[in-house]
Amino acid sequence: MAGHIYKTIDLVGTSEAGVSEAIQAAVDRASQTLKGLEWFEVGEIRGHIDNGRIAEYQVAVKVSFRVMSHDELQAEA
Amino acid sequence: MAGHIYKTIDLVGTSEAGVSEAIQAAVDRASQTLKGLEWFEVGEIRGHIDNGRIAEYQVAVKVSFRVMSHDELQAEA
Amino acid sequence: MAGHIYKTIDLVGTSEAGVSEAIQAAVDRASQTLKGLEWFEVGEIRGHIDNGRIAEYQVAVKVSFRVMSHDELQAEA
Amino acid sequence: MAGHIYKTIDLVGTSEAGVSEAIQAAVDRASQTLKGLEWFEVGEIRGHIDNGRIAEYQVAVKVSFRVMSHDELQAEA
Amino acid sequence: MAGHIYKTIDLVGTSEAGVSEAIQAAVDRASQTLKGLEWFEVGEIRGHIDNGRIAEYQVAVKVSFRVMSHDELQAEA
Amino acid sequence: MAGHIYKTIDLVGTSEAGVSEAIQAAVDRASQTLKGLEWFEVGEIRGHIDNGRIAEYQVAVKVSFRVMSHDELQAEA
Amino acid sequence: MAGHIYKTIDLVGTSEAGVSEAIQAAVDRASQTLKGLEWFEVGEIRGHIDNGRIAEYQVAVKVSFRVMSHDELQAEA
Amino acid sequence: MAGHIYKTIDLVGTSEAGVSEAIQAAVDRASQTLKGLEWFEVGEIRGHIDNGRIAEYQVAVKVSFRVMSHDELQAEA
Amino acid sequence: MAGHIYKTIDLVGTSEAGVSEAIQAAVDRASQTLKGLEWFEVGEIRGHIDNGRIAEYQVAVKVSFRVMSHDELQAEA
Amino acid sequence: MAGHIYKTIDLVGTSEAGVSEAIQAAVDRASQTLKGLEWFEVGEIRGHIDNGRIAEYQVAVKVSFRVMSHDELQAEA
Amino acid sequence: MAGHIYKTIDLVGTSEAGVSEAIQAAVDRASQTLKGLEWFEVGEIRGHIDNGRIAEYQVAVKVSFRVMSHDELQAEA
Amino acid sequence: MAGHIYKTIDLVGTSEAGVSEAIQAAVDRASQTLKGLEWFEVGEIRGHIDNGRIAEYQVAVKVSFRVMSHDELQAEA
Repeated sequence: MAGHIYKTIDLVGTSEAGVSEAIQAAVDRASQTLKGLEWFEVGEIRGHIDNGRIAEYQVAVKVSFRVMSHDELQAEA
Repeated sequence: MAGHIYKTIDLVGTSEAGVSEAIQAAVDRASQTLKGLEWFEVGEIRGHIDNGRIAEYQVAVKVSFRVMSHDELQAEA
Repeated sequence: MAGHIYKTIDLVGTSEAGVSEAIQAAVDRASQTLKGLEWFEVGEIRGHIDNGRIAEYQVAVKVSFRVMSHDELQAEA
Repeated sequence: MAGHIYKTIDLVGTSEAGVSEAIQAAVDRASQTLKGLEWFEVGEIRGHIDNGRIAEYQVAVKVSFRVMSHDELQAEA
Repeated sequence: MAGHIYKTIDLVGTSEAGVSEAIQAAVDRASQTLKGLEWFEVGEIRGHIDNGRIAEYQVAVKVSFRVMSHDELQAEA
Repeated sequence: MAGHIYKTIDLVGTSEAGVSEAIQAAVDRASQTLKGLEWFEVGEIRGHIDNGRIAEYQVAVKVSFRVMSHDELQAEA
Repeated sequence: MAGHIYKTIDLVGTSEAGVSEAIQAAVDRASQTLKGLEWFEVGEIRGHIDNGRIAEYQVAVKVSFRVMSHDELQAEA
Repeated sequence: MAGHIYKTIDLVGTSEAGVSEAIQAAVDRASQTLKGLEWFEVGEIRGHIDNGRIAEYQVAVKVSFRVMSHDELQAEA
Repeated sequence: MAGHIYKTIDLVGTSEAGVSEAIQAAVDRASQTLKGLEWFEVGEIRGHIDNGRIAEYQVAVKVSFRVMSHDELQAEA
Repeated sequence: MAGHIYKTIDLVGTSEAGVSEAIQAAVDRASQTLKGLEWFEVGEIRGHIDNGRIAEYQVAVKVSFRVMSHDELQAEA
Repeated sequence: MAGHIYKTIDLVGTSEAGVSEAIQAAVDRASQTLKGLEWFEVGEIRGHIDNGRIAEYQVAVKVSFRVMSHDELQAEA
Repeated sequence: MAGHIYKTIDLVGTSEAGVSEAIQAAVDRASQTLKGLEWFEVGEIRGHIDNGRIAEYQVAVKVSFRVMSHDELQAEA
């Protein structure tokens, strides 16, 4: 029997405050338009430097959320 | 001349039966809502343990399908 | 304060001409349906061989574009 | 405030039946001596060949379980 | 003193049944034409989708077998 | 002459505050039961999302500490 | 039932013209002595510099071709 | 026509406060002696533990800055 | 039927003599307190420099040893 | 006896024409200020998109050149 | 114009003496049956432990040698 | 408060004797022109084969040394 299915999308969150804040920005954004967010994974951490200072941290964040499985879709039909 | 274009989405399929079944669950789910699936690639293999037993295998699966190319979209317009 | 948010999608561009042309095909396609494309990253480079000759180069390309941030969405509401 | 802490150990499970069975063997073994197993991650998949046949699948499995956090240990003292 | 020497070849085994069966297909094939197979290592796991169903699992398998060492070759001469 | 020997254990620290706090939680926990901690290395950064918000950051941390070498053990015997 | 089996060989193609041309050189060479070439994958891209100019691009290319499966070999016997 | 050229240097920034602060320390240092810093990329995150506490976070940071291109150098000559 | 189970521990061996000697130091140490060591795998090779000279090579070594399987533990009970 | 020593620097070459041209731009630049360039290795391939079109390919290139060895420096003193 | 073509084979050299000796064993073996060896690359370093001591170092070595290019083969015909 | 800052440079050391000797050659060279070397990390291990024998081991070595921090530079001004 098949179980839950999750979909993962790739975002880049940015913040001038730090790494954790940039992650949070990405998750906040995802939660505006998606239901059922379950976990995130952090990828590349980069950033933009302007005039010798860190202008923004840019953190790649994979956000995963539950979608209805094949069986659930069938049951609904 | 440009050729076909494919789009790849990231799913996590789960199954209590095994790795291959979890992959299958992800592909089954993708085929419910997408046409033109062509291939998949397996990423991380993980799982949840409950009460000392494997409750579910969780397999990250990238599923790719054909989308209309720039030229095909132009020709249609 | 949170900054811009970007979304990244995975495409595979193909071309019979070469690697750069396959990248271009993927970006061209993305620009047909998405606004605000900012950068791309090249992943796996593969290809199909037919009758002893390269029939097409297949290049995985991640294309990133700006989406409205959580704050911008809030401000709009 | 700090949350839960998990410890991860590295096992190699083996089975003559297949990949999923080798993963299961590793988790079964861990559950004999450890409480609070929560998840596993699969690493390298290898195997031994004997007389031209697969004698055993050998799968590296990281098994994680909850340990008491620093705060919990302090509270207990 | 130098010891045994092994050679590793790269195969892709396929099966419509599952991941372990595709590995087995690769090892079975190698054992038809090579003596002294000792171990295998699994690489990329992919597959072909046809008409919304997994048509075949494709598993990259490195198969290693013993070859005569430099010293053994010398001794034979 | 052989030198010091170190052992490395794998922990996952969690915190609702951020990445650095999760690392700290793991190191704090290790220092409760182990002497001679010398360095740590950060692995995967993940997290749990609950109700659209980051419930906890989960950071894999390898913590290394000095153990007595073979020679030191011999000298003690 | 087992399906097709493929063998993969590692070549390094070189060209003074560019990356795509070096890939092509590798595939051209493989097609001189091997039947049934199906796909290639690009690995490391390097090159030699002579007198301040790129003397040649050197591209590692894995070329895969179909071999007869265990079952096909059995059927032929 | 060739465009801008960037040079990337590898630094390790350290801080007793956290990961983001260690990144900042590296960028601050680079901006003391280099003009035209544009972006950074974070590599390995490690740290030193002293007396059971994190004495410093050590973060590998690649810092990139613009250098004059071959054409610009030619034009200046 | 499940087969043998192995446990893998992470050590860092050090030596002022060279890479192989540092690996040996780690294995020697493991064999002081563990029975049934079977194989090792080398990870990161680093070292400490003192006064312009290599003071010690530091080699991460994973050492694996056999543990009793679930079935063997059951049989013993 | 020690042999030659090489130093490797990290550049990012850019071009609006393609991947090979961006590599060339980096090597051209290096050869303006460095003698004894011997080889290059290509890292990440990225690019900037402007108004839906590839504005520039950005290719990370490691360029290596010979430096005088310790022994040669000693001999010169 | 296409240049030289190289073929790479995968060997595992072993030695009871150390890492460099195991590499040498693999190269020695390759040179018995192949002409035109040009370079090698070291992969995974592992080993077998017997009775608490390193019985042999096992080093994966890719050995590359020149093969005649497509053009050279054509010219010969 | 910011701590020490380190800079890392990439060298390739070579030796006809072995891997450890090639590492040593790189560190020896670095110590001729740089003060405050602290640690090294080994990257790719390759080598050149001449006339069927290993002519030289080529080992990529990252060497790190302390540079004055931003605060120290400021204090000096």
